[in-house]
Amino acid sequence: MNKNLKVFIIDLDGVVFQGNNLIPFADKAIQKLKSKGKIPLFLTNNSTTSSIHLAQKLLSMGIECSHSEIMTSGIAAAEFIKTTKVDNEMGIFVCGTNDLRSELTKLDIKISSPDTCGALLVGQNPNFTYDDLKHSVWALQRKIPFIACNMDPNFPSENGRLMPGCGSLVSAISTASKCIVNYEIGKPNPRILDLLLSKHRLNKKDCIIIGDNKNSDIELALQVNIPSVFINSNPSQIISKDYFEAKSLFEAVELLL
Amino acid sequence: MNKNLKVFIIDLDGVVFQGNNLIPFADKAIQKLKSKGKIPLFLTNNSTTSSIHLAQKLLSMGIECSHSEIMTSGIAAAEFIKTTKVDNEMGIFVCGTNDLRSELTKLDIKISSPDTCGALLVGQNPNFTYDDLKHSVWALQRKIPFIACNMDPNFPSENGRLMPGCGSLVSAISTASKCIVNYEIGKPNPRILDLLLSKHRLNKKDCIIIGDNKNSDIELALQVNIPSVFINSNPSQIISKDYFEAKSLFEAVELLL
Repeated sequence: MNKNLKVFIIDLDGVVFQGNNLIPFADKAIQKLKSKGKIPLFLTNNSTTSSIHLAQKLLSMGIECSHSEIMTSGIAAAEFIKTTKVDNEMGIFVCGTNDLRSELTKLDIKISSPDTCGALLVGQNPNFTYDDLKHSVWALQRKIPFIACNMDPNFPSENGRLMPGCGSLVSAISTASKCIVNYEIGKPNPRILDLLLSKHRLNKKDCIIIGDNKNSDIELALQVNIPSVFINSNPSQIISKDYFEAKSLFEAVELLL
Repeated sequence: MNKNLKVFIIDLDGVVFQGNNLIPFADKAIQKLKSKGKIPLFLTNNSTTSSIHLAQKLLSMGIECSHSEIMTSGIAAAEFIKTTKVDNEMGIFVCGTNDLRSELTKLDIKISSPDTCGALLVGQNPNFTYDDLKHSVWALQRKIPFIACNMDPNFPSENGRLMPGCGSLVSAISTASKCIVNYEIGKPNPRILDLLLSKHRLNKKDCIIIGDNKNSDIELALQVNIPSVFINSNPSQIISKDYFEAKSLFEAVELLL
């Protein structure tokens, strides 16, 4: 493996923390990267929480970083909407959290109702209700673009229990409306990585991606042809030619430095 | 068309009422059927409301019927669970309304938690939340049978707006859990019709089905090889050899008597 890689693109949920708990030695791993002059950046499909709140959460776990070092699928969605004007500037109906709405309003994107919006944006939402589902369907009946922060079906929580992901809420909306997603924003879409790297004037060829999700983290790395480490607490016996494996971020960093 | 058909199996949502409004002349159509010695019975995929509450709703709209003349996918699910003991008598986790739970408890079926249940039953639920979704996924992680009251993606409400149906909630659960439905109870499954007819000691060959959903009502009629009327407020110009078309229940009854 190339030991000269400079930029470590690290997933958050399942790699740095699980729910509100730090994953053992993830803080030490990030300290070690910094002490060796490496640049850790965080790339997450989490769209429930703003980058400012995620930076505060990391700080509470002993990991110092600026909110600009965190790219979420919510920020990427806001940037995408701002750049493409996919909503025809009629505003967005957000099926998601207030933190997701705040990423849009930071870029002066209008938040609209199902009856007036120019596009629908669906993000992960632990407070999702039948009314959110119904209003999303009503918005889509107006034949507007359907944007998903990501298509992750689920993510792990404590005790091995699965939490429904943004992709499962998207499924409910797709089934009821008979509309398919027009734009998928988060990993494995390379756009979200480009956005993070261009913000920091960094180059893909110096990067490695570390994540616990084959369909998002590893798939993204394969798409942009950069190395990756698949974090797998039960490593498979078969060594893949496509990616490295490690049991934890700490082990991955040990392997890479 | 055979004018001697005796038993009229009528869908409720979209045929007799839309939300809380009687569809014009549906009451007259049912009165007319009765005055001609015909037997109207009601067959609905609605699993939110018990047959007793549906009979009360019909009465409030001027349509007299006994709750035994109404078969819902909730009653059919309860009968199915009671007969097959698909839950190994460990009880059912219900992702649905209290009226659906009451259909189970009427048959002495135990209501259980996600951690202890022997099967999951999903019904339509206008109060569906992320917690319902999460608990359903946790139940399915225990590899128990997955039962859906029906797979209807949506149903029409006032102003042409679509309401998400049971099938859309099932999609969210399927996507998050990566489990597929093991048992689909409602229309077009012929079992729900058999249940209604055997209760009244009636025979399929005397029946016609009247409904506004091709995938449930008409598909059921085709499966059991009985005639059907597709209620379509915008009738197609092409006459189908598989079913009759009418703009309303009233028009269908005029056509059939």
